Amino acid sequence: MTSPTLDTATMTDKELDDIYAFAVQLGKDAGKMLLDVTQLRIAGGNTDQECQGFTEKESAVDIVTKTDEDVEAFVKTSIFQRYPSHNFIGEETYSKSTTPTTSTYLIPSSPSSQPTWCVDPLDGTVNYTHLFPMFCVSIAVVIAGEPVIGVIYAPFLNQLFTACRGRGAWLNETQRLPLVRNNIPPMPADAPRGCVFACEWGKDRDDREGGNLRRKVDSFLMMAAAGEGKGDRRGKGGMVHGVRSLGSATMDLAYVAMGAFDIWWEGGCWEWDVAAGIALLREAGGLVTTANPPQDPETAAIKDVGLGSRLYLAIRPAGPSETESGRQGQERTVREVWRRVQELDYTRPGA
Amino acid sequence: MTSPTLDTATMTDKELDDIYAFAVQLGKDAGKMLLDVTQLRIAGGNTDQECQGFTEKESAVDIVTKTDEDVEAFVKTSIFQRYPSHNFIGEETYSKSTTPTTSTYLIPSSPSSQPTWCVDPLDGTVNYTHLFPMFCVSIAVVIAGEPVIGVIYAPFLNQLFTACRGRGAWLNETQRLPLVRNNIPPMPADAPRGCVFACEWGKDRDDREGGNLRRKVDSFLMMAAAGEGKGDRRGKGGMVHGVRSLGSATMDLAYVAMGAFDIWWEGGCWEWDVAAGIALLREAGGLVTTANPPQDPETAAIKDVGLGSRLYLAIRPAGPSETESGRQGQERTVREVWRRVQELDYTRPGA
Repeated sequence: MTSPTLDTATMTDKELDDIYAFAVQLGKDAGKMLLDVTQLRIAGGNTDQECQGFTEKESAVDIVTKTDEDVEAFVKTSIFQRYPSHNFIGEETYSKSTTPTTSTYLIPSSPSSQPTWCVDPLDGTVNYTHLFPMFCVSIAVVIAGEPVIGVIYAPFLNQLFTACRGRGAWLNETQRLPLVRNNIPPMPADAPRGCVFACEWGKDRDDREGGNLRRKVDSFLMMAAAGEGKGDRRGKGGMVHGVRSLGSATMDLAYVAMGAFDIWWEGGCWEWDVAAGIALLREAGGLVTTANPPQDPETAAIKDVGLGSRLYLAIRPAGPSETESGRQGQERTVREVWRRVQELDYTRPGA
Repeated sequence: MTSPTLDTATMTDKELDDIYAFAVQLGKDAGKMLLDVTQLRIAGGNTDQECQGFTEKESAVDIVTKTDEDVEAFVKTSIFQRYPSHNFIGEETYSKSTTPTTSTYLIPSSPSSQPTWCVDPLDGTVNYTHLFPMFCVSIAVVIAGEPVIGVIYAPFLNQLFTACRGRGAWLNETQRLPLVRNNIPPMPADAPRGCVFACEWGKDRDDREGGNLRRKVDSFLMMAAAGEGKGDRRGKGGMVHGVRSLGSATMDLAYVAMGAFDIWWEGGCWEWDVAAGIALLREAGGLVTTANPPQDPETAAIKDVGLGSRLYLAIRPAGPSETESGRQGQERTVREVWRRVQELDYTRPGA
C-alpha cells in the first residue's frame, strides 16, 4: 500500500509526499495560532497590551471571528506561496464571496485539475468561543474530486490526526488508526445496538413540524430508544450503547476513524467541515455514504458519498466476523441506520 | 481563603492538606491503571502474554468490568492503609452489596463523622469500552455531608482536575479554574440563549409516554429550539448556543467548572458520579441545585443540592454584570432552565 495509484495523471508519489508533509506542518502551525489566542483569552485582564479586549465573554464571538479569518488567511497565503497553481476553498473565503459561486460542486473533480485545498480554519466554533476543548483546524487536499490528504489538529487536546492515501491514518504521527488494529473488531451482530452513535444538534433550530430539528431529534430518539417499546418507535428502537454530541463534525469523523464512535449521522455540513475527516476515515478503513435513506434501503447500492452531498453517514473501520466481511458489516449497519432515521432537507444554494 | 473553617470539629488545615495531597496522588495512580489497560487493548494481538485476550471488541465489556473492579480495589486498599478510620463508598462495592444498604443517604453527614471517600474508579464506562477519550477516575472526600476534596483524572486526555475547599480548583495543577478568571464572564443576559447546554441520554431508554427518556428528550428539545416557534415549544424554546453529550457526568461537571459548559442538567446519577465534580465546581464558584423544577420555579429558594439527590442542575462560575451579582445571574439561569425542563422520575431504592 506504499505506492498507490492516484486518480491524477501527473502526480508522482514524491510530489504527494511533499504536499502531505507541507499540509501536516501547516496544520500544526495553524493549530498553534488557535491555541495562542486561547492562552491570551485565559490570560485576559493582564496589563500586557496584546491581551486587551480579551477580558469579557461578551466579546468572545468577535475574537473568534477574527481568529477564524486570521488563520484562514495564514493557511491560504502559505499554500499559494508554496503551490501557486493549486486551488483553494475555505470557509471564510466562501462565506465572504459576493458572487454566486455556489454551484453544485465547489471543488473541481476532473482528473486533470490541479489539487484543491479545502480548509476549515476553525471547526467547532461554538466550542472555541466557550473554551471547550473540542475544536480544531481541518485541512484537506482534494485530487480529482477525492479527499486524498487529511490533517486535523485539536491543539487544546494535543490530538493531531493525519492521513494520506496509501500512507495510513495516524494519531499524533505514531499511533496508527483505528486504535485497535490487530483483529479490528467487526460491527456488532445486532448493530446499532452496542454502537456509540454520534450526532449533532446544529444551528437549524426552527421548531416546526417536518423541519430538520424535529426530524433530527426523532431520529436520535429512534436510535436511542429500547427496541421493545410499542409507542412511536414501533419497536424499531436502536438501543445504541451511547449517544454523543461534541459540536464538531470534524472531531466526530476523527473519532469514527479512531474506532471510538461506531456511527456518525449528520446533515448540513459543507465541504470544509468533512473533507479532511473523510480522507482520514477512508484511509483508516471506514465507510462514508449518504445520511438520507434511499427508496429501497434494504437493497440500494451503498455508494461512497460525494464531497458536495451535505448529508453524511459514517461507519467506523470494521474487521470481518465469522459470517461476513468488514465491509458487509459496515453496509448492514448503514441499512439499520437508514431504517431508523428520517430524511433531512439540506440542499445546495444554486443547485 | 487559605484557612477555611471546615464543618468538622477535629480536622486541622494540615490534616486536610495531607488528605488532599494523598487523594491527588491516588487519582494519578488510578488513572494510570486505566491508561495502562487501554494501551494493552491497543497493543492487543501481540505475542506478549499479557496482551492475550485483548484482541476483540466482543470482550471489551469484560475487560472494562475487570478494570473497574481492579481500580476500585486498589483505591480502597490504599485509602484504608493510610486512613483506617475513614469511610469508603465506591460504585463497585455498592453494586455488589447483597444487603439492602440503600437507605436514603449513603454518606454520613454528622459533623463528628470520619471523612468518607466517595469513588468512581471509572466514570464514562461506555466511552472506555469504545476507547473514546472521555473517561476518568473520580475521587471525592466528603466531610460532614459536604464534598470538600475532588480529584478527577482523564488520563487519555491528560486532564487532571483537582480541588480542595479554600485551595481553589485547578486543571493540571497549574491552571486555576474557571479558565477565564480575570473578569469572569457573567451569565448571558438572555440565558439560556448563548449557553452551552450539557445533557446525557443515559441508560434508561424505556420508550413510553411519561417515561424518563421522553421527558429528557422533550427537555433537550425545549432548550435547543428557537424561541419564535409556536409548535409544541409554545415559544419557550431556549435556543442554547450548543447541546453537548459526552457520556460522563464527571467530565460534564469538570467542564462546567472550567467555564466551557454553562449548564448541565441530569437525573439518575449516584453519589460517586458527582461528588468529586461538585467539590470541583463549588470551589471554582459554580452552583449545583436540583434538576427538577419546584412548584414555584420563579420564586423558590435555590438550595445547594444534597449528595443523595440523584437530580442535578449545575451552572458555571459567573462574574457580576452591571445589573446583578454572579450568583444572581446563576439563579436567574436556574429559573430559566426550570421553566423549560420536565420533572424526572428518579428515586433512591429504600428511600
